[in-house]
Amino acid sequence: MNLKEYLSQKKKVIDLALQKYLPERKGLAADLIEAMRYSLFAGGKRLRPILCIASAEAVGGNMESVMPAACALEFIHTYSLIHDDLPVMDDDDLRRGMPTNHKVFGEAVALLAGDGLLTEAFRLMCSKDLLAHVPAESVVRVVEVVAEGAGCTGMVAGQVADIQAEGQQATKDMVDFIHEHKTAALITASVVSGAVLGGGNPRQIEALRTYGKGIGLAFQISDDLLDVEGDTNSMGKTVGSDERKGKATYPAVVGLERSKEIQNELVQRAVSAIEAFDQEADPLREIAYYIVRRRK
Amino acid sequence: MNLKEYLSQKKKVIDLALQKYLPERKGLAADLIEAMRYSLFAGGKRLRPILCIASAEAVGGNMESVMPAACALEFIHTYSLIHDDLPVMDDDDLRRGMPTNHKVFGEAVALLAGDGLLTEAFRLMCSKDLLAHVPAESVVRVVEVVAEGAGCTGMVAGQVADIQAEGQQATKDMVDFIHEHKTAALITASVVSGAVLGGGNPRQIEALRTYGKGIGLAFQISDDLLDVEGDTNSMGKTVGSDERKGKATYPAVVGLERSKEIQNELVQRAVSAIEAFDQEADPLREIAYYIVRRRK
Repeated sequence: MNLKEYLSQKKKVIDLALQKYLPERKGLAADLIEAMRYSLFAGGKRLRPILCIASAEAVGGNMESVMPAACALEFIHTYSLIHDDLPVMDDDDLRRGMPTNHKVFGEAVALLAGDGLLTEAFRLMCSKDLLAHVPAESVVRVVEVVAEGAGCTGMVAGQVADIQAEGQQATKDMVDFIHEHKTAALITASVVSGAVLGGGNPRQIEALRTYGKGIGLAFQISDDLLDVEGDTNSMGKTVGSDERKGKATYPAVVGLERSKEIQNELVQRAVSAIEAFDQEADPLREIAYYIVRRRK
Repeated sequence: MNLKEYLSQKKKVIDLALQKYLPERKGLAADLIEAMRYSLFAGGKRLRPILCIASAEAVGGNMESVMPAACALEFIHTYSLIHDDLPVMDDDDLRRGMPTNHKVFGEAVALLAGDGLLTEAFRLMCSKDLLAHVPAESVVRVVEVVAEGAGCTGMVAGQVADIQAEGQQATKDMVDFIHEHKTAALITASVVSGAVLGGGNPRQIEALRTYGKGIGLAFQISDDLLDVEGDTNSMGKTVGSDERKGKATYPAVVGLERSKEIQNELVQRAVSAIEAFDQEADPLREIAYYIVRRRK
């Protein structure tokens, strides 16, 4: 299969759906919707929605029936970036080569745009668009899975640990906690959501959960590596900022070479977890390998 | 009926449930849970959960079966206060007589505690505790209702309009938009959630929606009035801050006396909307009258 074509074709369909699912700007809250739209269309790779769709397809489901959930995951990812870039958090001016949300709309609207995207994600997951395709029981389960991955047992916990670790002497345990929560938890939730909505059986769902955890952690390690080895132009953000900020990263605690070895092991383990799946799971396999070689 | 006793008895049961539903503090994210707990137990009246329960009871449902949703509404209300108090928003140091979240835990953790509470609210609504009592279809509907009331079509839209109106010459239309979104939307969602989960029929749910909108707006008007007429001690926050900040309020656009008249009309209309209900709806009626006479 041609992964590049697969990713670009999926991204197009997802972008159209995101346009459709974003509420219209109107009245006194027009700026809010504008701010939500700005970050939603600021050049994301759509990795989480693509994983949700690819996972659904791997268990025999189809893209249309999981699209609202896939878009909801991108809403959540986008909210997390907006809040993460705020001055009280990472204080970043640039994201994917564009000014960050608060640089354009101010801090108050940026904060609220994040809150709006997070809340809208859950509305979208429970909208008629998703219920038309899947039973309510599956929808409820997916909301729980996504909230666990995104909230104080998942991504938000990772953000807190990340902030608090800054400037401290990091250990591998700390970095594992941060990466597993901050990044891998929502990626895992994306894969599991797709599996549940696509009608996967319990064994398939567990295999895909293992896959998600593996590539989720591998993905954050490539972020760490790109911050050391990447170049500012292709990344669209200033590289080397992790070290300057004293961030807890894989390269900082185990070195560059060992980070790459661990990353390869994680990807191998992720691919092994889904070896019983047929060729419908090829996109998931290719995405796992792509995570190691990505350059932005 | 004795409203004071009703409110205090319900508050006790809700406080116990909130304790139970808050995730345990552990690992590197212990501070996050601590910050969430701090604001959750900083002296709230539990109005939204009580309304959810009273509404469920008014249509023949029972408290136990809606408790997770009732607590989720308090999580959402608490998150909105934490974010609202942040320096980039209203910049308040004191809330209900206690230092605000960011004064105790710092701005980054406060921001994330808000994010955590909001996300956890949706997890809680989709947890087995609620599904044990109500069909998944009702749960999905309630998540949609609550997200609409809380997000960019509801409370968050009101917050944006509120911030942007500061220092401008306010009009009644602006104040109506702000109050209906910022406050009434989540109160309405609380009442409607209870009605749906309690098994209300469509006619009952619509009557309760009308009731919720009426008392929701009346409640925000009493907030406005207390900021003019209340005293700092009983309010637990500095009064007169609306005028200093140039906030768009009812007293500012229609004056004190007209504000009180409108508030009384709203409460009368709210009570009329549920006149067909039997005495199980008495707590809702009493709460409506209480909103006009409350002193904090």
